[in-house]
Parts: sequence; C-alpha cells; structure tokens
Amino acid sequence: MTEHDRLSGVFAPVVTPFGDDLSPDPERHVNHCRWLLSQDVGLAVFGTNSEANSLSVEEKISVLDYLVDAGIDTTRILAGTGHCALTDTVKLTSHAVKLGCAGTLMLPPFYYKDVSDEGLYASFAEVIERVGSNDLRIYLYHIPPIAHVGISPPLVERLVKTFPDTVVGIKDSSGDWDNTNTLLQLGLDDFRVFAGSESFLLQNMRAGGVGCISATANINPAAIHQLYADWQSNTAEDMQSNLDEIRSITQRYPVIPALKATIADFSNDSQWSLPRPPLMPLTVDQTSALTKELRQANFEMPGLID
Amino acid sequence: MTEHDRLSGVFAPVVTPFGDDLSPDPERHVNHCRWLLSQDVGLAVFGTNSEANSLSVEEKISVLDYLVDAGIDTTRILAGTGHCALTDTVKLTSHAVKLGCAGTLMLPPFYYKDVSDEGLYASFAEVIERVGSNDLRIYLYHIPPIAHVGISPPLVERLVKTFPDTVVGIKDSSGDWDNTNTLLQLGLDDFRVFAGSESFLLQNMRAGGVGCISATANINPAAIHQLYADWQSNTAEDMQSNLDEIRSITQRYPVIPALKATIADFSNDSQWSLPRPPLMPLTVDQTSALTKELRQANFEMPGLID
Repeated sequence: MTEHDRLSGVFAPVVTPFGDDLSPDPERHVNHCRWLLSQDVGLAVFGTNSEANSLSVEEKISVLDYLVDAGIDTTRILAGTGHCALTDTVKLTSHAVKLGCAGTLMLPPFYYKDVSDEGLYASFAEVIERVGSNDLRIYLYHIPPIAHVGISPPLVERLVKTFPDTVVGIKDSSGDWDNTNTLLQLGLDDFRVFAGSESFLLQNMRAGGVGCISATANINPAAIHQLYADWQSNTAEDMQSNLDEIRSITQRYPVIPALKATIADFSNDSQWSLPRPPLMPLTVDQTSALTKELRQANFEMPGLID
Repeated sequence: MTEHDRLSGVFAPVVTPFGDDLSPDPERHVNHCRWLLSQDVGLAVFGTNSEANSLSVEEKISVLDYLVDAGIDTTRILAGTGHCALTDTVKLTSHAVKLGCAGTLMLPPFYYKDVSDEGLYASFAEVIERVGSNDLRIYLYHIPPIAHVGISPPLVERLVKTFPDTVVGIKDSSGDWDNTNTLLQLGLDDFRVFAGSESFLLQNMRAGGVGCISATANINPAAIHQLYADWQSNTAEDMQSNLDEIRSITQRYPVIPALKATIADFSNDSQWSLPRPPLMPLTVDQTSALTKELRQANFEMPGLID
C-alpha cells in the first residue's frame, strides 16, 4: 500500500490512554496501536472514541509525532482532524499530511447548528485550499447523533465532484442504514464508504462498502476483521451475530469508559481506565459487571500488550 | 469598579470582524468595542455571536492582546473561554486572567453528549485548579439550544458552593424563563444571573437578575442599556416592547450574519458583512430587506465608528 491508496478494512478509533496528570501516555498508546495493527485493524487516531475532542491541537500533534517516532506505519493511520475552528482543522490536517498519514477523518465544524450546506461546503473547501497538498485524502465524518451537524448526501456529492482526488470517502455514524445506502448509491467513482460500527459491517460489504470504523474494534479487532475478510463466506451471518453480542454488552455502559475499563481489566493495568473529563471512569461495580458479561460471552483479547 | 467586582449590566457578545483572509481585523474590532463601551455596554468577547468557536485559541489570545494593547478597559471584558478540550479552556482562561479581564464566560465541554453532571463538575473543577488564580471569576454559559450540553441548576449550585469566590454568575441562554427563575431562586449569595437575551431583560431584573448578554446589544446597545438602567420606571414595558420589535426583525435572518450586515450597512463598510465558514454572509436581497425593515422601525446606530 502506498500512502496515496484509498483505504478499506476495519479501523479502530484508537482510545487514548492518560497518565494521572491527564496527558496522553505515549507508551501505552504505542503498545495499543501495535496490538491493533497485529490484529489487522487500522488506526483511526482522534476519532470520537479517542476523546480527540477533549485534546488540544498541540496535544494531538504531539501524539501523532510520538506514534510516528515509535515507528507506527503511517499508511495505516487515518487521523481525525476536524475541529470547530477552521484554523485548528487546517493546522492538524497539515501536520497529518506532512507526516504521511494515509488519510484524515474530518468532522464538519460542529458548534454552530442549522448551518447551510453552502457554509459547510465553504468550510471544507477552505481547508482543502489552505492545506494545499496533493497528498491530502479526506474521509468525511458524518456523526449527527453527537456532532448535531451532519454532512448530507448532496453535500458529499458536491465535495467529491469538486475535489475527486481529495475527498475520497466517508464514515457514516448516523446509525441509519438508509443514509449509508444512499451514499453507496450515489455512484461516485471509487468512493469509500465505511460503516460507523460493525453492526452494519456485513450489510455495508454486501452493498459495496469497504469496511467499518468502530469503537468496539479497540477490544474485539480480530473478530471484526475476520468478518470483513470473509464476508462472502457462508458463516458471515454467524460472525455478524457474534460481533453484535459483544458490542451489545459494551453498549450498556458509557462506551468510551467501557472500552477503557475492558482494556484495563484484560491487561491488568488499571491506569487504562482513566478518561479525561467530562467523561468519568466506570465505577468498580460497573467494571465488574461489564467484564463478567464479556467473559461469559467467551470474549478474549489475545496477545494484548500490557 | 475593580477587576474583582462582580459584573452586572448589559454585555454584547462582540461580533468579530474579518479581513478578506478571514483573520480577525484589529482596527474594526477595536472600533466596535469602543463604540459599545460608549453606549454603556460591556464586552463579552468570544461569545457564540463572536464566532468564537470558529477561532483557534491562538487567534483568541491574539485578539485579547490587541484589544488590551489598544487600551480597551479590561474591567469591561468578559472573555468567552470554554472549549471542548480541557487544555484549550485552561490556556485561554489563564491568558484572560493574566490580562486582567473582569471575568470569563465559560461553556461546558460541548462535544460529548449525555455526559453526567459529575463529569461536567470534574471538568470545571479541573480548569479552576489548573488556572489556579484568585483573580479568576467564572460566569457559566448555559446554552443548550446550541451546545447541546447544559449546566443544570444542581450543578450550578454545587460549583458555587465549592468555589464561592470563583463561580460567580451565569448567562442563561436556554430561552426558558422557568430555568432562569430556578437559578434566581437558588438563594446563592450575590450570584449574578444574566438573561441570554434582552427578551427576558425586564423579567430578569424584576426577579433579581443583573442584566443580559445579548447578540442584539451589538447593534442596539443604548436602548437595551436604558431598559437595564430604568427597569423600575413606568415606561419599562414600552421600552421592552421596542427592544422586542428590533430583535424580532434580526431574528428572521441567520443572526450572526444579520448583525454583521447591519453594522456593515449602517457604517457603510461592506467588509463587516463577512463571517467565517461555516457561516455565510446574508445575500444582497436579505441585507436589503433586513435594513429596510430596521429603518422602517426607526432603528439607528448613533455614533457608530466607521
């Protein structure tokens, strides 16, 4: 794969470990990235589940730098770079491109609500012009349940048609299959549609999508990758059911703290359980119930680097 | 007034003028601040209507620096400093305190939704601890229609009781008078409740509030201040009606572009009409209709510095 290839497969929005001072912890972070890569899962660093929106641009630049310095393969990095402020988005996107990251996952500016498609188009266009690089590959990030600002199919179409070599894909975290299907039916050349979770992975592959970017890939990467790789096999439906079972357990808790608590428990490293405010760690009782349920479902995290 | 006094009166979330490169324009910005001060209105720089959330922390630091360098009275500055990222909030808040700003208007971290009051408390507490200054005065910024993360009355009470000399007020932009009234009834010592717009100014003053922080104060400052000053006079209801009429005209358009278009038109300075994406300027037809309606309502901007 060269850094200009379009992406496919399963990506984890890599959860960010913190030290007691709430700074990102390079060693745990690099180890988790290495483990995910060993499970054939790519690295969507600075996704929603990375608590990326609780980190400053400077902190995110520092994280990218230490991952790259540690030898993490940049062709497997899809860096989240969309912020409320145009200038923040430009700064982090430029840095990710300079480092050779394979793509950027870009939220729309999400503070102002009820903005027009024209205004969102102007925002993405301004970012593209300011970054000014042929190496820029943008995967749009549509997550209306959290951002409350979406990227409509007509806006997607306009962006792709205007910037065909730059706007090359989307993560659809709407939770609405009809929207994903609409995106797949736009007929855009080699446009990469990632489902926003593994719940829609099989459906997405069957309809022409290229994979998924999912929170749960942080803890269940191999099984999710297996469905991606074998979606045409006659066990695909069973694999999907197994994925859904594990996901449904984690979804009974606040998701990011639940992922961190799971990693902490399965690696015997309680430091992993710490999120940054406004998120709070699971309580001891919640952690105990969650990990008990996971073990009862025969869940494992083989080879986890602790 | 010393810089430690608690604030009252009318504040404008100062609209931010941009040059053609979309950078904040110091000269127009300083002139607008001077005009607002001349109309007895304070400066809530970096409010929602300032497009503060479309600016990076570095840009906001630069804005504060040029306002202070130009001699703008810091005891009249209430600086918006709340961001999604803890570290951004700490950085800008620290800078505002260092410059001697009278207060900071603080959004909760607003990306992650459905967060607990416990998590929001932890976030504000961490900011207060990290800024670590006796000069810090926080006015909480409750604006659920846009932030989609609110600050509940029990959370307000907890913060004020834990940090009585630091958390000293709130701007309630819920648009829900019952919520404002609940805040006023909490019985917190000298807690300053600002209405989120002049629509509730008279009601707020009668119930023990201290003023309002309102978009429209950017264009109609003197009249809003007059109601604040004379709320006990027998013409107060008439003044409120007149304010409501002007406000209702601007509210028929996207508000921030409408404020900018109004300033542009009444100062004969078209540069003022430019917002930063994702916001878009009013069209020529919208601007024409808006300013015609305002003139028909005998609206004026006396003494506007162009």
